[in-house]
Amino acid sequence: MIRIALLGYGYWGPNLLRNFHENPRCELVACCDLDEKKLAKVRARYPSVHVTADPAVVLGDPSIQAVAIATPISTHYAVARRALEAGKHLFVEKPFTASASEARELIDLARARGLLLMVGHTFEYSPAVLKIGEIVKSGHLGKIFYVSMTRVNLGLHQKDVSVIWDLAPHDFSILFHVLGEKPAKVSALGRACIQKGIPDVAFINLEFPSGVVAHLEVSWLSPSKLRSVFIVGSSRMLIWDDTQTVEKVKIFDHGVNYKDPETFGEYHLSYRTGDVVSPKIETYEPLYAELDHFLTCVETGSRPRTDGESGLRVVEALELAEESLRASLR
Amino acid sequence: MIRIALLGYGYWGPNLLRNFHENPRCELVACCDLDEKKLAKVRARYPSVHVTADPAVVLGDPSIQAVAIATPISTHYAVARRALEAGKHLFVEKPFTASASEARELIDLARARGLLLMVGHTFEYSPAVLKIGEIVKSGHLGKIFYVSMTRVNLGLHQKDVSVIWDLAPHDFSILFHVLGEKPAKVSALGRACIQKGIPDVAFINLEFPSGVVAHLEVSWLSPSKLRSVFIVGSSRMLIWDDTQTVEKVKIFDHGVNYKDPETFGEYHLSYRTGDVVSPKIETYEPLYAELDHFLTCVETGSRPRTDGESGLRVVEALELAEESLRASLR
Amino acid sequence: MIRIALLGYGYWGPNLLRNFHENPRCELVACCDLDEKKLAKVRARYPSVHVTADPAVVLGDPSIQAVAIATPISTHYAVARRALEAGKHLFVEKPFTASASEARELIDLARARGLLLMVGHTFEYSPAVLKIGEIVKSGHLGKIFYVSMTRVNLGLHQKDVSVIWDLAPHDFSILFHVLGEKPAKVSALGRACIQKGIPDVAFINLEFPSGVVAHLEVSWLSPSKLRSVFIVGSSRMLIWDDTQTVEKVKIFDHGVNYKDPETFGEYHLSYRTGDVVSPKIETYEPLYAELDHFLTCVETGSRPRTDGESGLRVVEALELAEESLRASLR
Amino acid sequence: MIRIALLGYGYWGPNLLRNFHENPRCELVACCDLDEKKLAKVRARYPSVHVTADPAVVLGDPSIQAVAIATPISTHYAVARRALEAGKHLFVEKPFTASASEARELIDLARARGLLLMVGHTFEYSPAVLKIGEIVKSGHLGKIFYVSMTRVNLGLHQKDVSVIWDLAPHDFSILFHVLGEKPAKVSALGRACIQKGIPDVAFINLEFPSGVVAHLEVSWLSPSKLRSVFIVGSSRMLIWDDTQTVEKVKIFDHGVNYKDPETFGEYHLSYRTGDVVSPKIETYEPLYAELDHFLTCVETGSRPRTDGESGLRVVEALELAEESLRASLR
Repeated sequence: MIRIALLGYGYWGPNLLRNFHENPRCELVACCDLDEKKLAKVRARYPSVHVTADPAVVLGDPSIQAVAIATPISTHYAVARRALEAGKHLFVEKPFTASASEARELIDLARARGLLLMVGHTFEYSPAVLKIGEIVKSGHLGKIFYVSMTRVNLGLHQKDVSVIWDLAPHDFSILFHVLGEKPAKVSALGRACIQKGIPDVAFINLEFPSGVVAHLEVSWLSPSKLRSVFIVGSSRMLIWDDTQTVEKVKIFDHGVNYKDPETFGEYHLSYRTGDVVSPKIETYEPLYAELDHFLTCVETGSRPRTDGESGLRVVEALELAEESLRASLR
Repeated sequence: MIRIALLGYGYWGPNLLRNFHENPRCELVACCDLDEKKLAKVRARYPSVHVTADPAVVLGDPSIQAVAIATPISTHYAVARRALEAGKHLFVEKPFTASASEARELIDLARARGLLLMVGHTFEYSPAVLKIGEIVKSGHLGKIFYVSMTRVNLGLHQKDVSVIWDLAPHDFSILFHVLGEKPAKVSALGRACIQKGIPDVAFINLEFPSGVVAHLEVSWLSPSKLRSVFIVGSSRMLIWDDTQTVEKVKIFDHGVNYKDPETFGEYHLSYRTGDVVSPKIETYEPLYAELDHFLTCVETGSRPRTDGESGLRVVEALELAEESLRASLR
Repeated sequence: MIRIALLGYGYWGPNLLRNFHENPRCELVACCDLDEKKLAKVRARYPSVHVTADPAVVLGDPSIQAVAIATPISTHYAVARRALEAGKHLFVEKPFTASASEARELIDLARARGLLLMVGHTFEYSPAVLKIGEIVKSGHLGKIFYVSMTRVNLGLHQKDVSVIWDLAPHDFSILFHVLGEKPAKVSALGRACIQKGIPDVAFINLEFPSGVVAHLEVSWLSPSKLRSVFIVGSSRMLIWDDTQTVEKVKIFDHGVNYKDPETFGEYHLSYRTGDVVSPKIETYEPLYAELDHFLTCVETGSRPRTDGESGLRVVEALELAEESLRASLR
Repeated sequence: MIRIALLGYGYWGPNLLRNFHENPRCELVACCDLDEKKLAKVRARYPSVHVTADPAVVLGDPSIQAVAIATPISTHYAVARRALEAGKHLFVEKPFTASASEARELIDLARARGLLLMVGHTFEYSPAVLKIGEIVKSGHLGKIFYVSMTRVNLGLHQKDVSVIWDLAPHDFSILFHVLGEKPAKVSALGRACIQKGIPDVAFINLEFPSGVVAHLEVSWLSPSKLRSVFIVGSSRMLIWDDTQTVEKVKIFDHGVNYKDPETFGEYHLSYRTGDVVSPKIETYEPLYAELDHFLTCVETGSRPRTDGESGLRVVEALELAEESLRASLR
């Protein structure tokens, strides 16, 4: 039975607490937050969980093996550092840190101490992303040409981070997982429409070493909620529409047949459209699977699928996109 | 009765011929194309139309007041120049020319000769675009924040021009018409997936003097046909989905209420979602309305709504986008 | 503070318990169910609620003013009768009873004892149905011509009642509420596809005194989940699609203009299509509003909007539909 | 080269004329209509076609082997009778005749004279219906449980026939083709909303010898155009949505697993949801294929797939539905 503490009970913390609580492999023994009102909520719902406003209480308890961090992004680094120094295995919410240099330091520290470091890229544990990853890796789509992603809706504006740091972590982690590579180049255009200095819409371009190009649109200002991913390959094409309740993933047996005129002497290009298949996608809570994976790694010492390096490459891309967007605003 | 000749009977020419033929205000007297097979088709369908492979025959006929050019893009300039020099009023298909400098020369020449010059940006005569233009100009959407456009489908790959020169003329003319301004900056990322040197997917960013940012995705390689425009304003938001047969345009009475913390002392941001209205859109053929407008301008000497300047600003943006995309491919 | 007991903690009971628990105007003091495992769940989640397998304990407690019944349909009558005889105000889940005669007896008994009797037709407290009811009553749609409703999905087959008794109570209560009348005639065709003697698909026709005709399709065997209502009026038409997350209700300013040839001497019929409007629909939990209304009625002695008569007319229609369907199976 | 004449150039006739004209296997030599304005149109578009207002001219021409009838329904019988008596092979538009007795007489007459008789149930030549027919016949869906069909839109009201005779011929021919049987019982409810005595909405129930039940809704008064067919089988389920431009047909690998409690001692029912597949559907004009089949039958003497019997069973069902609807209106 792994003993765990949760640091941060804000927007996402309650989901972590609930899932740890329901998992019979661990005991969520303590929850720490600076806001007394939030602690009162924990007390009411989970009387068995010890609550405190002082992280030192949690970190100083040698019976606690692991901590999960769901505090504001800007504090991830400092809190994570203290937890690692206290010898705790670590689960950190996405985005991993507020900068790539912070991420690298934490990775080094965890390695030096022999501690587990996992980043909460929940989508990489979702049935749809796992299925899409398998499909791409199997070669079923052929060589990937390009990817186009959209994650837009009305709200919720953040006070401290741009829409890129808020929404793009999801898509970047999905994209890098599916492609199995990280981008060579990232750029962005955007605008701070509502709050000065806080961009709320961004168009992000990514270029990958393999030649794949990708685009991601993120916005807090869209009349419609869109969650779509188009993956275009040389053999087949795939659309994932996560706003659908059924047939979320579709594989189109469509493509282009092309004979290179330099080789074949004459130009020939034709289009093929075939069946469209929506594979059955399992339904389970990705967060439960994610946290269960964390527990397995704590138990076995194995490397988590979304480790510090995985968190780092997302932070690197966020940093590049944000920097490019900021330059465009000047 | 205006006497008109058509130069070029390829992909789009037949539509021009049919519409001129049906319009009682003009007589389409001659059609010129280098391909004898195409001329044979004209002869079969329109026995009264004189067909010829030699443009000189048409341009030398003093009874012909106006010509419409629907030849390949690369030839627009040369054919248009000859027509103007022959004293003909001119209708040129979109995109106007293969470069901005060509466009400027033709504008100057037409002005010097006192001849009409109109560019066939058909969408600017479509009921949906006219309606959207009115809505934006009326201030109903408030201040425009950003625009996101998508024009993707499977095919048709061109041999000589990129997807930008093939598809983006539509969206650029729509966008500049609706916003009433031309972009200060245009950039693009893309890829030539199928044919070497012919990009078939592009992500284009545009920045406008007013602060509006816009994004356009064009592709010949998409599993689904998408034709969408999102216009986000400070008061309301609008979506135009041209793949729908009904409710193509929707106005969302959605928005963000924000009190600037510097003024009001505290942060306050809330979301408003109200009714969604699909205004009735008239149904008529935009091309007929466009050509009828051309005839009116020939008759009255008035300036066409899509004049040479209008065609030029589209060509300028195409040139910038293509250049930026080409730089990214290097 | 009204003291309430819940009888029946099966499929729907937990929703009632949660909502009563969250409502500060009442105290849910006891919960009764024959299944000890279900009582254990109540104990775990709501330690303050007294649990028992014996309804006599609840009904004999004079401090309890009202009871809510969520037992299987076949037991509604017997349990409700005992509760009324024990002097309790009564909330009964839909469908009210297993037969119209049972319903009439309970209505009479409640009236004789001066007790409140409310039936849980939750949809009549939902924002969409209230909005649609207002729209129809306001005359905005004109005279209602016909209504077409569909409520189909895959599952859940019941062991004891047909799909009519399982799904049609929702639509009948919605329909009668919106039209403000009950049907003069009900008939149905259906089939027991999976379980012998338990019809799992039914096509139900209804004729109303005003001349309105209506159709309802209910099925446990549909590949797609559909929840749609079409209301066609002489001035406008309305569609409610409850599977949508946005724009659930749409009003079409469409219609037919017709001059009667007997009056006008010649036949003239034309079609009008105008704007489509999706009015904003509030979002709150209908069940909370329903139970809050029950509490208000208990406090004030006012007549509930979904009283026994309201429950009776639904049961009458179910009885007629089932009878007609059974006849077709013979 | 088969020589053919067309009788009737109203709503549908122009489509027949165009398709016969384009088919190199026949020569459409004459077109007959009582309306001189329509004949003028034929003259303008097809100068080679002889036009006349007198059917005797056509029927008396021994060089004409076959005639196609596209006159108003009420005249089908008389015109067809004359054509058969004149020794012409016969193509009659749907619905075959205005009554079953008329249809039987024509079948007998054609048989007695050794003449071909084909009814224009175009949908039975459409790629989607052929595909669905194959799928059902192959047993891929298992045993068919029920079918639900909808064909509704705004307009076009007919002056002389109800919405049943106008729209249901399509669905009846599709349904009987796919199921391979004709109904044992047909009933309908409807209403004449706009024109007295001309029902414009109808809900039709059908029962088949095999146990299949089916429902069809037809309306000229719907705010949305719907063209859908749900076919529910014991192994799989199918939806055909003909308003879609892509993925019109979908096969759902969904079903119910049921162990009969009488056999297995205990009740067990579970649901299976699997992949959804949209098979590629060919795209060609059904009318061309239909008329080409007619020409083949004329040439070879083989029995057409939609022969008189096929037309008769549709007329029988229309008659029953109309009769039932009329009874409900009294």
